[in-house]
Amino acid sequence: MSQNITLSIDAMGGDNAPDMVIEGLDMALRELPGTKFILFGRSEVLAPLLEKFPKLSANVELRHSDDVVSSEEKPGIALRSGRKSSMRFAINAVGEGEADGVVSAANTGALMAMAKFVLKTLPGIDRPAIASLLPTMRGECVMLDLGANIQCDAENLVQFAVMGEVFARNVLHISKPSIGILNVGTEVLKGNDSVKQAAAILRETSLPIKFHGFVEGDDIGQGTVDVIVTDGFTGNVALKTIEGTAKLFAGALKQELMRSWFGKIGALIAKPAIDAFRTRFDPRRYDGAMFLGLNGICIKSHGGTDALGFCHAVKLAHELVTDELIDGIKEDYARFSSEHHTIPLNSADT
Amino acid sequence: MSQNITLSIDAMGGDNAPDMVIEGLDMALRELPGTKFILFGRSEVLAPLLEKFPKLSANVELRHSDDVVSSEEKPGIALRSGRKSSMRFAINAVGEGEADGVVSAANTGALMAMAKFVLKTLPGIDRPAIASLLPTMRGECVMLDLGANIQCDAENLVQFAVMGEVFARNVLHISKPSIGILNVGTEVLKGNDSVKQAAAILRETSLPIKFHGFVEGDDIGQGTVDVIVTDGFTGNVALKTIEGTAKLFAGALKQELMRSWFGKIGALIAKPAIDAFRTRFDPRRYDGAMFLGLNGICIKSHGGTDALGFCHAVKLAHELVTDELIDGIKEDYARFSSEHHTIPLNSADT
Repeated sequence: MSQNITLSIDAMGGDNAPDMVIEGLDMALRELPGTKFILFGRSEVLAPLLEKFPKLSANVELRHSDDVVSSEEKPGIALRSGRKSSMRFAINAVGEGEADGVVSAANTGALMAMAKFVLKTLPGIDRPAIASLLPTMRGECVMLDLGANIQCDAENLVQFAVMGEVFARNVLHISKPSIGILNVGTEVLKGNDSVKQAAAILRETSLPIKFHGFVEGDDIGQGTVDVIVTDGFTGNVALKTIEGTAKLFAGALKQELMRSWFGKIGALIAKPAIDAFRTRFDPRRYDGAMFLGLNGICIKSHGGTDALGFCHAVKLAHELVTDELIDGIKEDYARFSSEHHTIPLNSADT
Repeated sequence: MSQNITLSIDAMGGDNAPDMVIEGLDMALRELPGTKFILFGRSEVLAPLLEKFPKLSANVELRHSDDVVSSEEKPGIALRSGRKSSMRFAINAVGEGEADGVVSAANTGALMAMAKFVLKTLPGIDRPAIASLLPTMRGECVMLDLGANIQCDAENLVQFAVMGEVFARNVLHISKPSIGILNVGTEVLKGNDSVKQAAAILRETSLPIKFHGFVEGDDIGQGTVDVIVTDGFTGNVALKTIEGTAKLFAGALKQELMRSWFGKIGALIAKPAIDAFRTRFDPRRYDGAMFLGLNGICIKSHGGTDALGFCHAVKLAHELVTDELIDGIKEDYARFSSEHHTIPLNSADT
């Protein structure tokens, strides 16, 4: 399968680009032999880098672009002035069918704006959402939207649920993932109108989905459901709160251990266990956010990522191409839309 | 000072009430000698419990009430049918000036509804907010609203900022706490209208407050600011996400340590350090959420708390009474309101 897959890569996006991009691709290729990469960026920088990785070079087609979208560029400006950027060319390659998916560690807003402009949204989907995997007590879950849509109505949340379900089925390999809507309580009457209406629609749908109901912030880490649906404001805050809490805990644990000799010696003896713990929550393992709802695979790698993180983002893109995610979403959403019109949105009013 | 303070206590609220309430009061009294408690609840249950704590008993006035507001009671129903409940009597004692503050571990919605009805909001404050301390890398911060107001406009957020600032000054003992509004990015143009307008107002105010600007989810744990202002939906999700992540990490660390002999032995040797880490993040140390904006001190202890957590909630109530928090908020808000009218709300439109 992987022999036929081609990914287009924005080599210039990310704080540590292009070095970490090249190194990350080399790591990914070892796990995904036969994958082809079309690499966009400044050839005078990239060509010498590629020379160090002969195996990768054999699978890379380098295409020159002068322009780079900066990490500070506003989406609208990037869209207008970045027509010859590595980011734009990399997305175009998917739009034109040359590549099966694109990966970039550049600025999220600009990437989303360009990807939406070039690839368009899927039929019936109003707004794409950013989805990512997160670690839980039971394994992993998918959360969306992580920041693409600051304000969401019930219809948007329902679309996120359907898309997130297909994503979870493919990436988590669960035949029937459970879906929860993030809220301030689990009772039916809790929350704002959007979450109440969205829940009412999902409760009544005849689609074969497993709607759990409302979940709360602590359910993310507990792994109560496989798919967490929320608006982009709440999702972004929740995601970054998880990151911040993780940093706080890791930092404080280290502080306490290093404060005494007993702590230091204990930590040394338990090092393999502590390393296993670190690996389990290594944010690089969760690198790769998917722009769901676009007519094409577009993966955003973390702006500050290194080669290992970028490698994971590339592997995610590869997996989603293999699993034909876009077709899955198209089919599910078409089925959902056809039966969904029988449910009036205001049926959820309380 | 503490000789003169009287707190009214709802002895029947919380999963482990009334045992943990009595024990918690006994612990609190040891640190706050001279404090008087008016204890509301079923005397046939409470009197025998009190007998075990003679020192406490000498400082407790027990008042009988038959009714108890259940943990599932809807706020509106509790307000109507709970007129003779321990919760209502305890709040009344503050309203009637018998007690300086009230502490309850009962259902948040019912407690807020009753406290608002009996104590009323402060002049100029539309809606009370729930505020609590949270651990950070630099110490502690105050976050509000944690769930009282699902939807908030700019005006509400500004009120939370002013109230949170006074709270932080009193509880964190910082002369000029910095304030941040929780958002999906730190740039001025990020976020929804409410946060943008609130930030514009706080940027322009001539009040002597230190407005930092926008903060993101990871800034909570980093301790970037002393006061985190947000709407009740986002704040509740963020708070519970922190709790969930903490549980996930603690659980996973234990799992990895217990998996091997090296892990177990290392953990044993480092036990004092690990215990110090645990104590530092013990949620019971952060028990006690303040209903800010009411004309009286009302502290909500966690529904599932034990004696130590309840003791912390009582100590918080005591501290806020001592510091005359309500007068501080009244003064600051009056000053803010008088100058605030010169700033049109729509000046923040972008």
